[in-house]
Amino acid sequence: MLSEAEQNKLKQEAANQAAKQLVSGMTLGVGTGSTVKYFIDALTRRRDEDGLSLAAIVTTSNRSKEALQAKGFKVSGLSDVELLDLTVDGADRVDRHLDGIKGGGGALTMEKNVATYSRHCTWIVDESKVVDHLSGFPLPVEVLRNTCEHLYRKFADENLEPEFRKDADGRRFMTHYGNYIIDLHVDPIPVPAGLALWLDTTVGVVEHGLFLNVADKVIIAHEDGHIETRTR
Amino acid sequence: MLSEAEQNKLKQEAANQAAKQLVSGMTLGVGTGSTVKYFIDALTRRRDEDGLSLAAIVTTSNRSKEALQAKGFKVSGLSDVELLDLTVDGADRVDRHLDGIKGGGGALTMEKNVATYSRHCTWIVDESKVVDHLSGFPLPVEVLRNTCEHLYRKFADENLEPEFRKDADGRRFMTHYGNYIIDLHVDPIPVPAGLALWLDTTVGVVEHGLFLNVADKVIIAHEDGHIETRTR
Repeated sequence: MLSEAEQNKLKQEAANQAAKQLVSGMTLGVGTGSTVKYFIDALTRRRDEDGLSLAAIVTTSNRSKEALQAKGFKVSGLSDVELLDLTVDGADRVDRHLDGIKGGGGALTMEKNVATYSRHCTWIVDESKVVDHLSGFPLPVEVLRNTCEHLYRKFADENLEPEFRKDADGRRFMTHYGNYIIDLHVDPIPVPAGLALWLDTTVGVVEHGLFLNVADKVIIAHEDGHIETRTR
Repeated sequence: MLSEAEQNKLKQEAANQAAKQLVSGMTLGVGTGSTVKYFIDALTRRRDEDGLSLAAIVTTSNRSKEALQAKGFKVSGLSDVELLDLTVDGADRVDRHLDGIKGGGGALTMEKNVATYSRHCTWIVDESKVVDHLSGFPLPVEVLRNTCEHLYRKFADENLEPEFRKDADGRRFMTHYGNYIIDLHVDPIPVPAGLALWLDTTVGVVEHGLFLNVADKVIIAHEDGHIETRTR
């Protein structure tokens, strides 16, 4: 087992690797999470030391927006940028095809929108997130509030073991868009593309945490201290 | 051409026909529109004259909710009712398969949710709405605000002639859910099921106005004064 300091150093190295891809003039999407925090540090260093100057930065959360603004970066809205050149984000699980589960933080809809309108997408993860088949993490589904009870029953009926996500006060967690999240406890996920299509076509579902064909590069920080890069 | 009084009488007759299906104890969904207004009148008469007592009523808009409450009906939320037995609504276009376009009023998402969680669905329309192939009416698509510009370009790129819907003040029309509507001017719609699937799987699209396999009965008020009922 690595110490926390060693783990952090590893995350930092993975984040540096992700930041190496950046060239001046690019439009960049920035995700959320503990590794992304290090990526923002790496980005700041590249600006201050290499003179890196990005054309625009868009984030998937207010947390990252504020972290970037604190470093003096200007943050744009997704609508202000025609296409992002690259998005760097974390993931909750990633499989052998570089497909993943995201949305543990509840921002899956914004994350999927930013990633969709990016030419390239890199995820930074530690080894514990890497699996052969998508498993070991509940699949978040963002649902409209006025159909959430129907969807809950529909999911239960399909043996997807639905559970409303709760906030710290025990109330139903509400997303940025004013919707609820139902976590599906289906483990492993059989034929993710089939489940994704079924969810996409289920009325009342706003978005789901299956990110298929989204990432084209995954940077993995391994427990033994080495950094691995996989590309699609 | 019928006079306005004759047209209204015809709508009233069609609405009466729709209301004949109701039996006490049913859960009912009520849509929106000029014909639905007559349906609410018919419903009120059936309560007052036949003693019809419904278990619950859900509406697709505040307008219908208020119209029903003004007649002394209690209106429930969709989440409060496990399954609706029947929904009665209008449609902007209906084709030979009883598939339709809805959403001219901008409430497509609520309308689709209510219809989806109904065992049966009846549409009341006048003859002008009935077509062989879905055509003659723009297809509304409800989109998230922060991806609306990307979706607009994507739709334009597919020759779908997108147009942001505007409100009376010339600003972008905002839905009940805080989203925008892009109307697609694709006429006629080629392979509606294909377009529906493409829209369902397009990130940033909340819902669209293609209502396929939704209505199982359509009551048509013809110009010549007769009422026709088609069933799936």
